[in-house]
Amino acid sequence: MYQQASRRSEKQKISTELLILTYGTLVAQLCEDCEKDEDINKELDKMGRNIGTRLVEDFLARSNVAQCRNFYETAEVIAKVAFKMYLGVTPRVTFWSQTGDDCSLFLEKNPLMGYVEIPEKRSCLLYSNMICGILKGALKMVCLQVDIQLLQDSAKDDKVTEIRMKLMRRHRVVRTVEKKQKYCVDS
Amino acid sequence: MYQQASRRSEKQKISTELLILTYGTLVAQLCEDCEKDEDINKELDKMGRNIGTRLVEDFLARSNVAQCRNFYETAEVIAKVAFKMYLGVTPRVTFWSQTGDDCSLFLEKNPLMGYVEIPEKRSCLLYSNMICGILKGALKMVCLQVDIQLLQDSAKDDKVTEIRMKLMRRHRVVRTVEKKQKYCVDS
Repeated sequence: MYQQASRRSEKQKISTELLILTYGTLVAQLCEDCEKDEDINKELDKMGRNIGTRLVEDFLARSNVAQCRNFYETAEVIAKVAFKMYLGVTPRVTFWSQTGDDCSLFLEKNPLMGYVEIPEKRSCLLYSNMICGILKGALKMVCLQVDIQLLQDSAKDDKVTEIRMKLMRRHRVVRTVEKKQKYCVDS
Repeated sequence: MYQQASRRSEKQKISTELLILTYGTLVAQLCEDCEKDEDINKELDKMGRNIGTRLVEDFLARSNVAQCRNFYETAEVIAKVAFKMYLGVTPRVTFWSQTGDDCSLFLEKNPLMGYVEIPEKRSCLLYSNMICGILKGALKMVCLQVDIQLLQDSAKDDKVTEIRMKLMRRHRVVRTVEKKQKYCVDS
C-alpha cells in the first residue's frame, strides 16, 4: 500500500488532535481484532517498525541533523528533534547506564493520550507501544539495532511515560561505489 | 476508549508525516479485516464520524470562528480553517448549486496520499473516505445534517480529490437554561 514519499520542500504543520484521534481509532480497531493485550502490543510494535522505516527518510531530509557520533547524541536527537517534529513534545533523556548504551526517555505528558481511557479489562495493553516500534524501525535504517520498551505508560496508573532504549548492536555502513547507496552489514 | 480532551492552551504543531503513515496503517488494517472495498469505505466513514464528533470540540475551542450564518460560510470555514488546521492544506470551494446547499471541496494535493499506492484489486476503495466521516460527525455536532461523499480520490486515477457536500437539514439549537448546554432538535 505504500510507496516512497516525494521530498517536500514545504514544511506543513498541523495540530496534533487528528493524529491523536486517528491513532486511538487504530488501537480501538486492534482491540476489536485481537483478544489478548499482548497480541495488540506486538501488532502496534510491528506497525510502528513499518512506519519508522519510512518516517526516517522524511526525518533525515527535513531535520538536517549531522551523523551522531555516539548513542548519547542519538538519544538527544530523538528527544529534541524527532519527538518535537512528529509529536510536538520533548521527552527528558535520563537514567543513563555507565556504559552509555541504555537510557530512558521520560514524557511528562504523552501526546497520544489526549482522549484515552483504557477499559479495565485491557490492563496489559501498552497503548503507546507504536512509538517503540517507530523508534526501532527508524534506528534500524541508520544501522542501529536498539531494544526499546515501554516501561511506564501514562494511559495506565503510571503518571509518566517511560521508554527504555538499549543499544544492542551498531552495524557497519558499507557504501557501494556503483550505486552510491548505503547498506548496513553486521560489524 | 475515549474521554473528553482537556482544553489545551498551547498550540502544538507537528509535521504531517506521522499522521499520514498512521492513517495508512489504519486503512491497511481494515484491508486485512474486510474483504469488500465497500465495507472498508463504510468503516472509514463510521470511524471518521466518531472522530469528527470529538474533533469539533477542539476546533471550536481553538479556531474562535463566529457562528456561520449560512452554508456558504460553513464551507469556507471548513476549507480555510479546519482543513488548514488538521491537514495543512486549503481546498478550493466550488461548484455551488443555485440553492446554495451543495458545493464541492477540491484538493489539488491530498495530504493523506503521501506514501500510498492502492493495490489493483482494491479498485473501489475510497482511501480518503474518513475525511467525509469526520466532516459529517463534526457538522452534526453543530446541528447540520450534511451528506458528504468522495466523488474523486487522488489515490486512484483521478488527479484531484473532490468532496461533495450537500446540506440536508439544519436543526434548531435549543439552549437549556439549567445546564447552559446546547441541544439539537429537529426544526
